[in-house]
Amino acid sequence: MNPNLKCLAEATAVALLLMVSAASAHEGMWMPGQTAEVGEAMRADGLQIDPAQLLRLDADPLNAIVSLGGCSASFVSPQGLVVTNYHCVFGSIQYHSNDGQDYITDGFLAKSLGEELPAAPGSRIEVIEDVRDVTADMLEGVSDELNGFDRYERLDRNRKALTAACEEQPNRRCNVESYYGGASYYLEQKLEIQDVRLVYAPALGLGSFGGETDNWMWPRHTGDFGFYRAYVAPDGSSRPYARDNVPYRPKSWLPIAREGVEEGDFVMVAGFPGATDRFLTADEVQFNFAHHEPLLHHLFSDYATQINRATAGNREAQIRYASILRNVQNVEKKLAGDLAGADAIGLDARKTTDEKAYRDWIADDPARQARYGAAIRELDAVVAENSRSSLKSLRESVLERAKILSSARTLYRWAKEHEKPDEERESGFQDRDLNETVDRLTRIERSYLPDIDRKLFEAALDEYRRLDAEDRDTAFETALDQIGFDRLYADTKLADTATRLGWLEKPATAFEASDDPFIKLAIALYPGDIAADRTAKDRAGRGLTARATYMEGLRAYRQAIGRPVYPDANGSLRITWGKVTGRTRDGQVWTPFTTAEGLLAKHTGRGEFNVPDAAIAAIRAKDYGPYVAPVLGTLPVNFMSTVDITGGNSGSATLNGRGEFVGLAFDGTLEGAISDWAFDTDRTRAIHVDSRFMLWTMDKIDGASRLLKEMGVRPASRS
Amino acid sequence: MNPNLKCLAEATAVALLLMVSAASAHEGMWMPGQTAEVGEAMRADGLQIDPAQLLRLDADPLNAIVSLGGCSASFVSPQGLVVTNYHCVFGSIQYHSNDGQDYITDGFLAKSLGEELPAAPGSRIEVIEDVRDVTADMLEGVSDELNGFDRYERLDRNRKALTAACEEQPNRRCNVESYYGGASYYLEQKLEIQDVRLVYAPALGLGSFGGETDNWMWPRHTGDFGFYRAYVAPDGSSRPYARDNVPYRPKSWLPIAREGVEEGDFVMVAGFPGATDRFLTADEVQFNFAHHEPLLHHLFSDYATQINRATAGNREAQIRYASILRNVQNVEKKLAGDLAGADAIGLDARKTTDEKAYRDWIADDPARQARYGAAIRELDAVVAENSRSSLKSLRESVLERAKILSSARTLYRWAKEHEKPDEERESGFQDRDLNETVDRLTRIERSYLPDIDRKLFEAALDEYRRLDAEDRDTAFETALDQIGFDRLYADTKLADTATRLGWLEKPATAFEASDDPFIKLAIALYPGDIAADRTAKDRAGRGLTARATYMEGLRAYRQAIGRPVYPDANGSLRITWGKVTGRTRDGQVWTPFTTAEGLLAKHTGRGEFNVPDAAIAAIRAKDYGPYVAPVLGTLPVNFMSTVDITGGNSGSATLNGRGEFVGLAFDGTLEGAISDWAFDTDRTRAIHVDSRFMLWTMDKIDGASRLLKEMGVRPASRS
Repeated sequence: MNPNLKCLAEATAVALLLMVSAASAHEGMWMPGQTAEVGEAMRADGLQIDPAQLLRLDADPLNAIVSLGGCSASFVSPQGLVVTNYHCVFGSIQYHSNDGQDYITDGFLAKSLGEELPAAPGSRIEVIEDVRDVTADMLEGVSDELNGFDRYERLDRNRKALTAACEEQPNRRCNVESYYGGASYYLEQKLEIQDVRLVYAPALGLGSFGGETDNWMWPRHTGDFGFYRAYVAPDGSSRPYARDNVPYRPKSWLPIAREGVEEGDFVMVAGFPGATDRFLTADEVQFNFAHHEPLLHHLFSDYATQINRATAGNREAQIRYASILRNVQNVEKKLAGDLAGADAIGLDARKTTDEKAYRDWIADDPARQARYGAAIRELDAVVAENSRSSLKSLRESVLERAKILSSARTLYRWAKEHEKPDEERESGFQDRDLNETVDRLTRIERSYLPDIDRKLFEAALDEYRRLDAEDRDTAFETALDQIGFDRLYADTKLADTATRLGWLEKPATAFEASDDPFIKLAIALYPGDIAADRTAKDRAGRGLTARATYMEGLRAYRQAIGRPVYPDANGSLRITWGKVTGRTRDGQVWTPFTTAEGLLAKHTGRGEFNVPDAAIAAIRAKDYGPYVAPVLGTLPVNFMSTVDITGGNSGSATLNGRGEFVGLAFDGTLEGAISDWAFDTDRTRAIHVDSRFMLWTMDKIDGASRLLKEMGVRPASRS
Repeated sequence: MNPNLKCLAEATAVALLLMVSAASAHEGMWMPGQTAEVGEAMRADGLQIDPAQLLRLDADPLNAIVSLGGCSASFVSPQGLVVTNYHCVFGSIQYHSNDGQDYITDGFLAKSLGEELPAAPGSRIEVIEDVRDVTADMLEGVSDELNGFDRYERLDRNRKALTAACEEQPNRRCNVESYYGGASYYLEQKLEIQDVRLVYAPALGLGSFGGETDNWMWPRHTGDFGFYRAYVAPDGSSRPYARDNVPYRPKSWLPIAREGVEEGDFVMVAGFPGATDRFLTADEVQFNFAHHEPLLHHLFSDYATQINRATAGNREAQIRYASILRNVQNVEKKLAGDLAGADAIGLDARKTTDEKAYRDWIADDPARQARYGAAIRELDAVVAENSRSSLKSLRESVLERAKILSSARTLYRWAKEHEKPDEERESGFQDRDLNETVDRLTRIERSYLPDIDRKLFEAALDEYRRLDAEDRDTAFETALDQIGFDRLYADTKLADTATRLGWLEKPATAFEASDDPFIKLAIALYPGDIAADRTAKDRAGRGLTARATYMEGLRAYRQAIGRPVYPDANGSLRITWGKVTGRTRDGQVWTPFTTAEGLLAKHTGRGEFNVPDAAIAAIRAKDYGPYVAPVLGTLPVNFMSTVDITGGNSGSATLNGRGEFVGLAFDGTLEGAISDWAFDTDRTRAIHVDSRFMLWTMDKIDGASRLLKEMGVRPASRS
């Protein structure tokens, strides 16, 4: 445990302990250091271990929680076995599947360590070693005298210095994130394990049962689990894949609960939620739902239409663009859920009321006015500017759909940034970003076809041209006219991956001498991009200071009314707890468990609803072994709870009151999607894979007894 | 009661009475004459009146049930007041709404008889007077020696003669429909009331609450009710609208139940279900779900896309095409439900098993083989031919999207048919069809814009051209090439309604001398249409006889295994019963009632979820008067039951065990849509407006005390 964090926790624990009961029982993505604040509430709800245990990053259970970068996961054996969601390991399954070996359809199970396969390029497991408060270091030299741009640059420089110092340790990834709108900063130091191997994943018909149709839906019957293993050099240090690497030995791993959960039970989830926007001002929320998200939804919906149109009747193109389309449709569905949810919970009125109460509280007291008044006025001004610019940026962003253009812009920016010393370069263009940049530039080949890209670029240009004349980039448009649209795809060499990557090593002058039409476009766009960046940074710099003070005031206000505040999700480790609970609406009840019989009832043998034969036979025979839930009298598949999670929590371990593994969080319900903006206790439910379904599949269907034993579970089947 | 029907009912009643308990309790759209067969089962489920009462068309309650042509309805007062669904009177609300008076948003309530408004053109109320078995008359001269075409023609001639004789009585509409695949024919004789007036409809925010979003969905909160009144001449005879017409005095009207229903209660529904396909062969069902419906779904989905694309950014066009789009999307949603439902219930396997059992039963006995064997083989052959031709027809039908072309085809066919004596003309082109033809040709103006029609026609031609070369009409394509696509819309005069209707009176020679490009296309298409008609009639003629025998065998088989058979829905009067019941699935329970509080929870104040202020205030105040459901402790809105209904049942009265009005059927659930193909007791639920919500709205929100009193209900509010 980092001493800074511990102090912070202790200092606030006393003040907040008594207030928690007044807060919504299950709202909150708490930093580990905050568990002291909410520990008594957790205990009251059923936590059996000492809440102080949750303050410690160096001990069970938090020490077993890892990040996959975008997904959460956890160690479940002393040999570095990692469990997460099926959809988090899917890229690796896909990577190793081909005509001869269809791991997607059949699933994959390594029979021994030797059979475990290298995960898809770019895969990593990040083990948190430390979280420390770096607020003072970050704010050093950030004075009120600086203008917005300089403030931004100063913060950026401080952040880079902190990161660089931390990453001098080998194989460490260090990230400084802002909390409470910039009122605090913490540095997360993680050991980066680069040799990740695919160990086991069930068949698609279980792991992704229900597919896109059931995504965000309840009732749900998805066996969304899969296993990786962390490997390191024989000396225990992290290094890339090597034949003689050995399983990593984590300090902690989660024990598998002997009994699963039942309705009403306490559950907690530890993982890395990506982003929430619960503390924006009422104006920002109003603007978002009146203008920003509707435009975003329109753009995504239009993008999906364009992809469908461009690939119609072309099977190869449909396969190539399937993953982009799936992502686009997923976002579209989430945005539609947000928009409907905002209406349904009366978000606008709720935020306006809350905001007014806070501002009235400030207005009521001259000291508060003096302390927060100016910052809030400044924040309001920046928010208004942000709103104006955000729609423009959104529309401009459609140009990113043209993948070669997007690559050319990245490459030229890379060349320009590399004229500076590493520490002065823009984030994303430093040496530490090289691997990820190569991955991204390489990945394009998987979902690129020139004819399709061309059609999508044409449609994107139509959308781009809807910008007001003064918001359009004349240099870009002139260059495009001079080159001629038809020449773009005929003449570019950037569609070739090796050529594309080769440009990463060239200086800016080489770009400026190039005839490649997309490079010419990228160069034309560059001055506009830099100018826009500068304005955005100035706004961000002013906004950060103002928002930090706004949030400081909000925390003081909330403290006064007895509502403790946790920071918005930002990809850092958080804990949330709740209960296994269904949901009652008028005319409808969601009961909290689904069962194997329900899975079979949904099975059609086709498309997204196609359970493997072995599982069908076992369910028909009710061959459930010890995995039956006593209250249900059958095998549970998924359950729902009131824990407070969001994107990034995929794969998060779900723990019982004793800190034992009882399942994996993998989704929410569409009607609860609005909780990213304002948590609604009544509507919001998380969906989990029940550990009993996972163990049953491993034991009875896939014969993964090797792994079960490793996890301390005695297989019931004779095989 | 017609003596024929009575005899039939009595003859079969004894034989079938004992078998009913073995049948699915609530499956069946029974002809009134069949209620003797199922009367004991109805009594066991809670029917309190004598089932014999349901045999009588001349008495309460069946005498109060009327058809609106496409919707069902019922008399609820001695002054000809008719209650049906809001969506069934919506056309009339729309017809009278304009900038000055927005009856759509505000609702409409006539304060006196004098304020009641003429319903939209074409509206009618049909009161059943008689249903008689005309099988012998229909089959006269239909011998096995005739080929298919001649058999078809003979049946058609017999049908026309029966219809014409019946319609010699003034203001009667008479229809002969086939039952059991042509094994029986009944003639329905209906008094056609032509002066229909709009009396009352709630605001759109209640009458269509939830709109397309909630269509086919549960939980549901729609006040889908509205009122017409039947008017006749002072002497009691039917005639078109005239100022001095007086309210019609029906022989019966439904009493409003003093108490509403609760969970588990018996309910029955009487109305006019349109069409089901429950007795097709396994091959036909297999073909439908493997080929026909997927293509149909594709065509509808594509049509919706084309309309959206063609009208994008054009508000006027969007309004003009809104109703077409709504219908197209509604069908698309239903088809998607069908396709998913067929998978979900394993329809293919179920039909194959049933069919095999029936055919095995025939094969087991030489007498049965002799009686049914040849017909079944013939039916199989015709089914194979039908399958081949149906996909072709489907693709050709896309040309109907071009509204002026479609009109020109109707008009030319009309001219050609009118060269023959009335009784020899094709159905749909006889004098009795004139009014409806005029209505249809007029209605086009409401949803036609040349630019949009042109774009839709272009897209339709793309689809048409996917037909195999030999299936395309070269005469049509040659004509189109000669005219040139660009000239079609520039040169046609048919877009003008008066001009279009004027062609109804012209001879075929005038068409052949015309330069109008769409008339030229219609003439080019004509020979192909006639040839296709002839082939279709031959198949139909062969199929009818074969299917009648197939159905005769099926009824015998079902009788042997104790499953009584009702005929597929065909638009004729049917009775179905069931219970007020929710539905339990894995992880989810639908409870059978929704409530006013649930309505308010869904209210967003926007779009399809916008409850009128007066209703919001009354719900917040819990001002429910005597309309509270005791068990729920609040005002019910909708309920669900297991009654067996389909399209055409919209507006059907829902009756309790005493035959009293307790609500209106208005929808089903999407997952039950598959019941049109095979009734699934477990999945299928009908959705009803609860009469208490209707009465509350009339009493507390809209002040319709005049109507309540007329219906024998004492208003609770002082107003």
